[in-house]
Amino acid sequence: MQEHTLTNQGLKDYYASMGYAGRVGFGTRPALAVIDLAMAWVDPASPIGTPRLEETVVNTVTILESARAAQIPVFFTVMSYDPALKEPGRNALAKSRHLSMMVRGSHWLELDPRLERREDEPLIHKQRASAFFGTTFLSQLIDAQVDTLIIVGCSTSGCIRATAEGSSDLNFRTIVVSDAVNDRSPSAHEANLFDIDARYADLVSMAETLSYLDRVKSRAVPA
Amino acid sequence: MQEHTLTNQGLKDYYASMGYAGRVGFGTRPALAVIDLAMAWVDPASPIGTPRLEETVVNTVTILESARAAQIPVFFTVMSYDPALKEPGRNALAKSRHLSMMVRGSHWLELDPRLERREDEPLIHKQRASAFFGTTFLSQLIDAQVDTLIIVGCSTSGCIRATAEGSSDLNFRTIVVSDAVNDRSPSAHEANLFDIDARYADLVSMAETLSYLDRVKSRAVPA
Amino acid sequence: MQEHTLTNQGLKDYYASMGYAGRVGFGTRPALAVIDLAMAWVDPASPIGTPRLEETVVNTVTILESARAAQIPVFFTVMSYDPALKEPGRNALAKSRHLSMMVRGSHWLELDPRLERREDEPLIHKQRASAFFGTTFLSQLIDAQVDTLIIVGCSTSGCIRATAEGSSDLNFRTIVVSDAVNDRSPSAHEANLFDIDARYADLVSMAETLSYLDRVKSRAVPA
Amino acid sequence: MQEHTLTNQGLKDYYASMGYAGRVGFGTRPALAVIDLAMAWVDPASPIGTPRLEETVVNTVTILESARAAQIPVFFTVMSYDPALKEPGRNALAKSRHLSMMVRGSHWLELDPRLERREDEPLIHKQRASAFFGTTFLSQLIDAQVDTLIIVGCSTSGCIRATAEGSSDLNFRTIVVSDAVNDRSPSAHEANLFDIDARYADLVSMAETLSYLDRVKSRAVPA
Repeated sequence: MQEHTLTNQGLKDYYASMGYAGRVGFGTRPALAVIDLAMAWVDPASPIGTPRLEETVVNTVTILESARAAQIPVFFTVMSYDPALKEPGRNALAKSRHLSMMVRGSHWLELDPRLERREDEPLIHKQRASAFFGTTFLSQLIDAQVDTLIIVGCSTSGCIRATAEGSSDLNFRTIVVSDAVNDRSPSAHEANLFDIDARYADLVSMAETLSYLDRVKSRAVPA
Repeated sequence: MQEHTLTNQGLKDYYASMGYAGRVGFGTRPALAVIDLAMAWVDPASPIGTPRLEETVVNTVTILESARAAQIPVFFTVMSYDPALKEPGRNALAKSRHLSMMVRGSHWLELDPRLERREDEPLIHKQRASAFFGTTFLSQLIDAQVDTLIIVGCSTSGCIRATAEGSSDLNFRTIVVSDAVNDRSPSAHEANLFDIDARYADLVSMAETLSYLDRVKSRAVPA
Repeated sequence: MQEHTLTNQGLKDYYASMGYAGRVGFGTRPALAVIDLAMAWVDPASPIGTPRLEETVVNTVTILESARAAQIPVFFTVMSYDPALKEPGRNALAKSRHLSMMVRGSHWLELDPRLERREDEPLIHKQRASAFFGTTFLSQLIDAQVDTLIIVGCSTSGCIRATAEGSSDLNFRTIVVSDAVNDRSPSAHEANLFDIDARYADLVSMAETLSYLDRVKSRAVPA
Repeated sequence: MQEHTLTNQGLKDYYASMGYAGRVGFGTRPALAVIDLAMAWVDPASPIGTPRLEETVVNTVTILESARAAQIPVFFTVMSYDPALKEPGRNALAKSRHLSMMVRGSHWLELDPRLERREDEPLIHKQRASAFFGTTFLSQLIDAQVDTLIIVGCSTSGCIRATAEGSSDLNFRTIVVSDAVNDRSPSAHEANLFDIDARYADLVSMAETLSYLDRVKSRAVPA
């Protein structure tokens, strides 16, 4: 076995030869999950903000428009802790000290206003990377009889990957929109897209996602 | 913001400046989890086997010796499916076709004999990357009043990372032994060690782990 | 407020007046879960066996016939522990000492042969009352895009109630077939049917269940 | 087998003869969970309020005093939904229509002021009967290295039983304080105390609980 550099075609072929990275495909009852596009991440004035999310937000707004036109369920998430910081626990506080700014009521928890979240689009308050951990997101997906979860937002190496793995473990068809997710580290972004595609979710372009949502809207996808 | 290459000190410093990658530390009631060191992975004759695991097994045997001497709980895991392959689900079968060889009763599910698993050391049959998903591993850790989970085995980019994240989400102090885990892809190994250290677990050397287990054995760690 | 006796109409009316015990109804994609109809419970020679289950088994066989004719997913469960009894934990061993007979490979874990379980009908090995706890039952239901869970078997006050609550918490439409579940204690049976109906699941007769399955079979239920 | 009436000694003996209802006992690191003692339940003006909770609140205040003196972790819970009522799901809305009054910000969600909750005593917002479902309560218990969960509040047939079962499934030693829990239905109260004691938790009097907390306070319980 030879060494591989991270993203080259050789490594993809090597994985494919072992049976990794097959396609699952879109189903017939999708939902959209917009992960953590709140001020703490998107505002460049934030201690953990990154200008690399600008395109992510703009593309998410485009996808949201199609999702609403197709009348599929839309969910938003944000990190959210109690003011006394009992909820994060020692691991989160030691590993990710910046989480102590994610206190309910803080400006940093407000969604980017361009997303124009509607009142009947649930906002999941989560305390870990995965949108499924310690929330009722799963029950809400089952209530809506969802079979496909489309994931956009940030960060690729944290909440996107964790939510994609959770979704895949539960057997939802899982789609990560490759040009609507990002990370403050370009290399962590690439490495995690590779793992996500190999193990947990289909990496799909925004163009292909919009085309699918159009078919859902026009009932070209059998319900 | 400038671009970073994956493992350089600059990226580590950048993350540290934002509050990532702090230390959680060992607690007082550790358990050891040996992840997926079974024939499917360690046997070079296996379709997904890799010679890169040889050092991982040898180092795990050394750590096991210390763990047993310190009389801490030891757990093993293996992937395990029903012969009709109803249990993996469409995602695992599409993404990781090799999982169809992980059928109960198969040779590929046998642990490496060098581990010398004892009958009272639980063997967790899992169906997803995380040892916590769809198992009672968590209940067994609580029953043993464990506060620290030490993780060894394979693969870094799959079951090690997923189990470390699950452990951290639950607030166990989580230790990944850096020279007792590995992956078929060196680059995926490095990228995931970086994320694990930044977000979920302390990366600790085997030497430091053995030293800690010696202190547990001699009751230098208060219970 | 006056006192009520357990099963009288007065109590039902009192609950209904507060908004309890509404109907959820059958959906369009049902699955059948046959809970714990194994030798430990159905064999009168078993230390915890009860002749009260005879009608439950007979009626379950009838429902199974309709479920298979309608080609809906069928699941079976059984309790199942490791021989070293590490898996149950201190609570189960103290509260339910008889669980120590539920060791993998034991005669007591064999399903009643009249059920004629087929190889592609999953057998969920569970370690707690709920079929959802520490298993991948949930993922298998999502994989099959189930929206309705029909529950039969035993015991009403233990595994039936716990599985019905788990199913309801997850937002599956949940149906407990009133004449295909039972309990060694008639009074515990009645009291728990009351709670199940008030809080978690629709109590439905076998006749009504068979009629629904006939409609599923003939595609009178839109998929 | 003869028929039994619900709460008589004969039924208890019958269960005990089969290995049910053993004692688990207190451990060394307890936490107290005060379940749902909010206006919706304790205020007689509430549509689901009951005067039967008056003694429960008074006794809970006494236990809280001892718990705080012993410096053990204290948790409170309340039901809590979004104003758009997307979070409860079809089952809860159909079965328990009164839940639609449990909207965040409502007067009905305020804890009884006699409990004098302190800011560093977490308030778990839950959406199902069990305090563990869809919350991070479990992670917070692990963070505090709890081995024993003492449960008080309401209602015996709903949230008390569900939380006790969840706690027991996870292998916490589980204590339900028999004179600090209650239910609007006396018969449901009795029937569920019987099941809880037989299957999931030790039923312990307030006097015995206070005596244990005194020993914890004086360090007579080894940590």
